[in-house]
Amino acid sequence: LFSTGTRALSETGPPQAKFFPANEGSMLLPGTYKGKVAFITGGGTGLGKGMTTTLSALGAECVIASRKLDVLKKTAEEITAQTGNKVHAVQCDVRDPKSIEAAVDQLVEVAGLPDVVINNAAGNFISPSEKLSANAWRTITDIVLNGTAFVTLELGKRLILAEKGAAFLAITTIYAETGSGFVVPSAAAKSGVETLCTSLAAEWGRYGLRFNVIQPGPIRTKGAFSRLDPTGMFEKAMIGRIPVGRLGTPGEIANLAAYLCSDYASWVSGAIIRMDGGEYVSMAGEFNDLRRVTKEQWAMMETMIRGTKGS
Amino acid sequence: LFSTGTRALSETGPPQAKFFPANEGSMLLPGTYKGKVAFITGGGTGLGKGMTTTLSALGAECVIASRKLDVLKKTAEEITAQTGNKVHAVQCDVRDPKSIEAAVDQLVEVAGLPDVVINNAAGNFISPSEKLSANAWRTITDIVLNGTAFVTLELGKRLILAEKGAAFLAITTIYAETGSGFVVPSAAAKSGVETLCTSLAAEWGRYGLRFNVIQPGPIRTKGAFSRLDPTGMFEKAMIGRIPVGRLGTPGEIANLAAYLCSDYASWVSGAIIRMDGGEYVSMAGEFNDLRRVTKEQWAMMETMIRGTKGS
Amino acid sequence: LFSTGTRALSETGPPQAKFFPANEGSMLLPGTYKGKVAFITGGGTGLGKGMTTTLSALGAECVIASRKLDVLKKTAEEITAQTGNKVHAVQCDVRDPKSIEAAVDQLVEVAGLPDVVINNAAGNFISPSEKLSANAWRTITDIVLNGTAFVTLELGKRLILAEKGAAFLAITTIYAETGSGFVVPSAAAKSGVETLCTSLAAEWGRYGLRFNVIQPGPIRTKGAFSRLDPTGMFEKAMIGRIPVGRLGTPGEIANLAAYLCSDYASWVSGAIIRMDGGEYVSMAGEFNDLRRVTKEQWAMMETMIRGTKGS
Amino acid sequence: LFSTGTRALSETGPPQAKFFPANEGSMLLPGTYKGKVAFITGGGTGLGKGMTTTLSALGAECVIASRKLDVLKKTAEEITAQTGNKVHAVQCDVRDPKSIEAAVDQLVEVAGLPDVVINNAAGNFISPSEKLSANAWRTITDIVLNGTAFVTLELGKRLILAEKGAAFLAITTIYAETGSGFVVPSAAAKSGVETLCTSLAAEWGRYGLRFNVIQPGPIRTKGAFSRLDPTGMFEKAMIGRIPVGRLGTPGEIANLAAYLCSDYASWVSGAIIRMDGGEYVSMAGEFNDLRRVTKEQWAMMETMIRGTKGS
Ligand SMILES: NC(=O)c1ccc[n+]([C@@H]2O[C@H](COP(=O)([O-])OP(=O)(O)OC[C@H]3O[C@@H](n4cnc5c(N)ncnc54)[C@H](OP(=O)(O)O)[C@@H]3O)[C@@H](O)[C@H]2O)c1
Ligand SMILES: NC(=O)c1ccc[n+]([C@@H]2O[C@H](COP(=O)([O-])OP(=O)(O)OC[C@H]3O[C@@H](n4cnc5c(N)ncnc54)[C@H](OP(=O)(O)O)[C@@H]3O)[C@@H](O)[C@H]2O)c1
Ligand SMILES: NC(=O)c1ccc[n+]([C@@H]2O[C@H](COP(=O)([O-])OP(=O)(O)OC[C@H]3O[C@@H](n4cnc5c(N)ncnc54)[C@H](OP(=O)(O)O)[C@@H]3O)[C@@H](O)[C@H]2O)c1
Ligand SMILES: NC(=O)c1ccc[n+]([C@@H]2O[C@H](COP(=O)([O-])OP(=O)(O)OC[C@H]3O[C@@H](n4cnc5c(N)ncnc54)[C@H](OP(=O)(O)O)[C@@H]3O)[C@@H](O)[C@H]2O)c1
Repeated sequence: LFSTGTRALSETGPPQAKFFPANEGSMLLPGTYKGKVAFITGGGTGLGKGMTTTLSALGAECVIASRKLDVLKKTAEEITAQTGNKVHAVQCDVRDPKSIEAAVDQLVEVAGLPDVVINNAAGNFISPSEKLSANAWRTITDIVLNGTAFVTLELGKRLILAEKGAAFLAITTIYAETGSGFVVPSAAAKSGVETLCTSLAAEWGRYGLRFNVIQPGPIRTKGAFSRLDPTGMFEKAMIGRIPVGRLGTPGEIANLAAYLCSDYASWVSGAIIRMDGGEYVSMAGEFNDLRRVTKEQWAMMETMIRGTKGS
Repeated sequence: LFSTGTRALSETGPPQAKFFPANEGSMLLPGTYKGKVAFITGGGTGLGKGMTTTLSALGAECVIASRKLDVLKKTAEEITAQTGNKVHAVQCDVRDPKSIEAAVDQLVEVAGLPDVVINNAAGNFISPSEKLSANAWRTITDIVLNGTAFVTLELGKRLILAEKGAAFLAITTIYAETGSGFVVPSAAAKSGVETLCTSLAAEWGRYGLRFNVIQPGPIRTKGAFSRLDPTGMFEKAMIGRIPVGRLGTPGEIANLAAYLCSDYASWVSGAIIRMDGGEYVSMAGEFNDLRRVTKEQWAMMETMIRGTKGS
Repeated sequence: LFSTGTRALSETGPPQAKFFPANEGSMLLPGTYKGKVAFITGGGTGLGKGMTTTLSALGAECVIASRKLDVLKKTAEEITAQTGNKVHAVQCDVRDPKSIEAAVDQLVEVAGLPDVVINNAAGNFISPSEKLSANAWRTITDIVLNGTAFVTLELGKRLILAEKGAAFLAITTIYAETGSGFVVPSAAAKSGVETLCTSLAAEWGRYGLRFNVIQPGPIRTKGAFSRLDPTGMFEKAMIGRIPVGRLGTPGEIANLAAYLCSDYASWVSGAIIRMDGGEYVSMAGEFNDLRRVTKEQWAMMETMIRGTKGS
Repeated sequence: LFSTGTRALSETGPPQAKFFPANEGSMLLPGTYKGKVAFITGGGTGLGKGMTTTLSALGAECVIASRKLDVLKKTAEEITAQTGNKVHAVQCDVRDPKSIEAAVDQLVEVAGLPDVVINNAAGNFISPSEKLSANAWRTITDIVLNGTAFVTLELGKRLILAEKGAAFLAITTIYAETGSGFVVPSAAAKSGVETLCTSLAAEWGRYGLRFNVIQPGPIRTKGAFSRLDPTGMFEKAMIGRIPVGRLGTPGEIANLAAYLCSDYASWVSGAIIRMDGGEYVSMAGEFNDLRRVTKEQWAMMETMIRGTKGS
């Protein structure tokens, strides 16, 4: 289904990457999603396309929604051809409640109320924060936070009314955790998305709804990398600090997503799951740079430490 | 300066409250804020008024800003009279970048660029999430998240340009941590505020700017309690699960805020500080309800546990 | 493979449980663990037995280790018979480095160095903390924290020497997050285990080793429930606050564990994953008790809130 | 009282350090600790000595405890001379419950049961984890986790029996948050300490006891730096990633500690407070390295980003 895996591995990164092959084929039993309907925002490209491919391969009828109908249609046809299960394309701007309402009407018409809702659409770009206008700020939070909320409220209300259960998943990012400079609107909005999900996991469980979050680390997609590392000059540094020694791939996110939205995970709700090759804990740990210390330097430092008396 | 402390204590709450008197007088050395300018959004009422009072008593020249100019003016006069240090009132709707620009112009005119910026303005109300319209959602995130961002961007840009250092503080809430049902827009937006602050703590340190956050637990203010516990029926339950056995008071928040924004805390940046009488950890801990177990029941359970063989 | 699922569902719990059936059959493609060796501490009972069953069913050769050899042998035979894949029983007290060394020697002899290591052994009991002796404290931290560390160091060193990659998994608990009264030694030790894992995820990635953690919520096992809810009087309260409306089951944990330790998750390292039916976020959210508010009460409160003027 | 501040500032670090002067004089009103008794483990050196100095200056009668009686006595005399308030020295190895019992007997005899208990004693050193023996592991967890627990249990039981309230404070570290390689036993044990504190904040509030934690970032003390950066070669890198542009100082920790243990903070319990100049959020944020991007590079990247079409 996927082909990025090989590419991600062919880079000359840290040698340990050989221990951690990217396995992008669907891991779940065939037919796991038979008879299920999935709605994926931003499903026409990148990670959204990856998740749609996997769910579709597992038997789901998928509806993908975003602004560019032509892109969506191309993806829908491609996946339908690949998996034999119908993928529908629906235009939708998540910033606009009316547009969402219309899209959901279409979704219901073509496939019925969904069993799975994946809030994956987002916008982002790097910039020094002092260069952000109020408008630039709003552009991001409108898509990421309000967009996710509007989709969730619209579908949540209809599902509750219909007394139908469903699994919601949102895609955030590892820097939603403690933030990051230079992507501040995205960081703030993604944190908001996480809290939206944990809040509704608590509140809407009684209606048969679950909510979970995946925080991906860096995965090369055109949408993300062209706006976050346009020159390509940070990729090497990123890979260098990822314990697993390589970037992630869409198929790996897709497998985790497929698990979380399946009935096998029906006892998982309110969870926020990092998938980043260990990058976050590696960056955050104060002494992790000591990985650069050589054997000889360790020997010397050990002697010095042993020689220390008192405090 | 304050009088709520006594009232908070006079309730018949858990007996341990006697160990935890609310000490609302300013704790810092007099004159700590001599020559400093502080800008406080929502400074006319509740916690904002409390923080303004304490900073003013410590020597700061304060500028308070919110929508209701009459309320602000009354508070400004009251505090000025009390402390002898000038408090200015400036109208400002934090949802509107233009209004913020005008307010900051005024601030600069009357007092100069601030040394302290407190993002305290907020809106909130309880509601089942399935009853929220997109507009209701936006009302809250516009004030809480975008409002905080717009104030921060406007003042940050000017401070950076002027090469002036400053301490920023935001007031969020304990449920920003893992969210809460029935206050979802507020929870999501407050999480966003926290991440905005930690992100800029990292990015804007190089310009001499610090960013910290206080997460208050429940403190009886008209603004909060009339919209979060209109019937008063949840107050008792809240107090019952607060380990310290009482609600907090504005003066206590004010002392922590005064510390965080002072030079004594110049090495504190990117911190998120819970002040809640222990409520959060008490709620979140799975076995904390065992506090209701009596001595006799413990004796019985101990015997049963000791009698257990194997797994 | 499992039969607890049905039982967990047959309780009269919250009605939403019907939306969240426990799906305990293995979800991964058959043969996923073909040719792999897994070492599971505490694998003779409860969750450890569940994980062993699932890994074995997927093709792994499993080695289970704990103090009671008779219990281990019975489980090993049972699972071997069920799955047709050999399960070995090895005696081991994780508090004792010598005992671990001997057990690992045996492991290597019968099956070779492992591809998967699951630190699942633990001890726990409820008690008011003021009744804990230093010895009682040490009993728990010795098993949970030091035991996990000793197993991890022993196997880690051998794997590093042999230049063999592996996936480590530890089972902690949701109250490792912000602690809990009445189970304090366990809470502290489990937090330590989590940090051990995230630390080594960062440090030992370069050797081909991954480290992840599952935090289960309440799952009825004899070992856990006889010491944590001996009278059975807290089970109802627990279920009442779990959004998913039921306890978890060993097979559900096993599926998540099987995913995390498989090559499908080779980009997951340093992750801590809550699986608790939403209990943690439900407990921790300040306003989640409003789920008890009736429609009529909401209508009344809404009117009161709308009527509020000012702050 | 302190003199390190100046020294910390005199280094040639990032220019923004000038905005963040280290203010080490005590910030609280004189006499805040009049009539109070404080017990500080590891109070003879480093941060413990700093906190003792500040509490003593504010009027407390302090009792400091650790293994080296001569060091303690020297510090006790020095501070007593400086502040005019008696500091007592008591020998105590926190790994040994008997030794703690004897030390607490002495404490009670010379000063009475304490109002303030600071768990500050610790041990640590850097090492690749694959070089750690089980004994090395235990050495650290015995001091840090068990030692803190034993001191807390011993004093907690006596305070509860005497129905006396008190404020507990523990000193952990920023890498207790998500761990760190090369200091793994310390990271795991410090996490355990944090959870011990949050757990007891919930459980023992009813007895009038509060529990809080400070997580310091890097502060040059002989004890810490000789074992964590023996060659001095990492100090520059640390300072370079600290947004505030300098290391912290003992007096700054002492002011925060003095606040947290005072009645001004009686509504603070279960809080974990980072004081690290922003280092943690700076390290953890994925895009913070973009601070190295020059103006020209930003201009170029902006153009590239604007030129991107689609995803
Ligand atoms: N790739 C990574 O390294 C990475 C890391 C962390 C998190 N993520 C997250 O993963 C998700 C997918 O990102 P990606 O890397 O796959 O990038 P991507 O291909 O650019 O995906 C973003 C998608 O969002 C859609 N979208 C944007 N604005 C929209 C709007 N207003 N209404 C509806 N749809 C909209 C886009 O489609 P249209 O243009 O057709 O609207 C696009 O399909 C995002 O949430 C991102 O934050 C990615
Ligand atoms: N009290 C608590 O228990 C509690 C607990 C946790 C957190 N908090 C937080 O503490 C802060 C203060 O709350 P409080 O309890 O003191 O309630 P409050 O008195 O209602 O304070 C809110 C303030 O925000 C101002 N405000 C609202 N919308 C605004 C806008 N669009 N532009 C400018 N200002 C605006 C209000 O003034 P105008 O109406 O004049 O605009 C008001 O002064 C809030 O951030 C709140 O979330 C409170
Ligand atoms: N069930 C739950 O609700 C729940 C919730 C959260 C977390 N957990 C965690 O899940 C894991 C499994 O618990 P469980 O519920 O399945 O209970 P369990 O059946 O009692 O499992 C504990 C296992 O640990 C082994 N063990 C105890 N001390 C040992 C030692 N010194 N050396 C070697 N092995 C030792 C026991 O075997 P021997 O007696 O033969 O040594 C037993 O097999 C534990 O880590 C527990 O903390 C369980
Ligand atoms: N400095 C930093 O950068 C930094 C950063 C983060 C956290 N911290 C924490 O701050 C605290 C103080 O550290 P420090 O930098 O001030 O280093 P330090 O001077 O070495 O302080 C450690 C103290 O612990 C005492 N101690 C060690 N083992 C003991 C035992 N078994 N029983 C009783 N006392 C014992 C030592 O006294 P004896 O030798 O007399 O026993 C010493 O006074 C520690 O908890 C440390 O982890 C420091």
